[in-house]
Amino acid sequence: MKNKAYIAGFLDADGSIYVQVKRNTSYRYNFQIATNIVFFQSAKNEKFMIDLGKMIGCGYMRRRSDGIIEHIIGDEESIRDFLKNVSPELHLKNKQARLMIEILDQKKNISSAAEFINMVQIIDQFQKLNYSKNRKNTVEIVRKELHKEGMLTP
Amino acid sequence: MKNKAYIAGFLDADGSIYVQVKRNTSYRYNFQIATNIVFFQSAKNEKFMIDLGKMIGCGYMRRRSDGIIEHIIGDEESIRDFLKNVSPELHLKNKQARLMIEILDQKKNISSAAEFINMVQIIDQFQKLNYSKNRKNTVEIVRKELHKEGMLTP
Repeated sequence: MKNKAYIAGFLDADGSIYVQVKRNTSYRYNFQIATNIVFFQSAKNEKFMIDLGKMIGCGYMRRRSDGIIEHIIGDEESIRDFLKNVSPELHLKNKQARLMIEILDQKKNISSAAEFINMVQIIDQFQKLNYSKNRKNTVEIVRKELHKEGMLTP
Repeated sequence: MKNKAYIAGFLDADGSIYVQVKRNTSYRYNFQIATNIVFFQSAKNEKFMIDLGKMIGCGYMRRRSDGIIEHIIGDEESIRDFLKNVSPELHLKNKQARLMIEILDQKKNISSAAEFINMVQIIDQFQKLNYSKNRKNTVEIVRKELHKEGMLTP
């Protein structure tokens, strides 16, 4: 990847590294863990966003209805590759990058509801780092649900 | 300057290169030309902004009342030095950087109201590049004032 430091600066200023816990009963533990790295920009700068996408070399572009274009890296392998390259150049979102890798590592080794809960606990730390205000499925919610479903013994 | 590419990415994403025409009758042509390069960040990331200021190596930090911290490069020599280093790494604000240098070059050579008007015309191009909505002293306003003051012959 060329322009690693440039991309790191852009991500620190106007990007986001985040993890969502989405209720989705088609998943083993009733919740999907969605990982995302997103770059934002006004749709006025669409040409630039296409160039940025080429620099990044993975992910896809999405045009929102509110005039914002996002470049999204969502799949786990791409996120790993991207962070391996860009993390050393970050100055602001280093902790988010480390947490993201930690979550991806845990995610592939989960073999019980208790381990799943542990991972959601790590995800909760993102909330604090990112000052996220509309996080719904905290570890308390997930734990309650898995108890109710009998997946988690008290 | 270290981290040129990082700083360029940060500036492209969340910074601003802009010129203001401020009414100020203590100046030769009744208007002051104020040049600025500004980096923005939530005051929550004050520590990072101090580090960014060190990387940049010039300018000063300002804490706004709305919870935003700005790092501002305002003096002309610093802007020139900064852009000489960072411009080659920009991907989005290249035009603003070029216009800024053009304005600084013109500014020091102004010897008539007509030349001053020409410069304000170049500054108006910033408005279009930056999608600025609250620009007051356009070339029309300045021209009218200098006419009225008898500095500019029709």
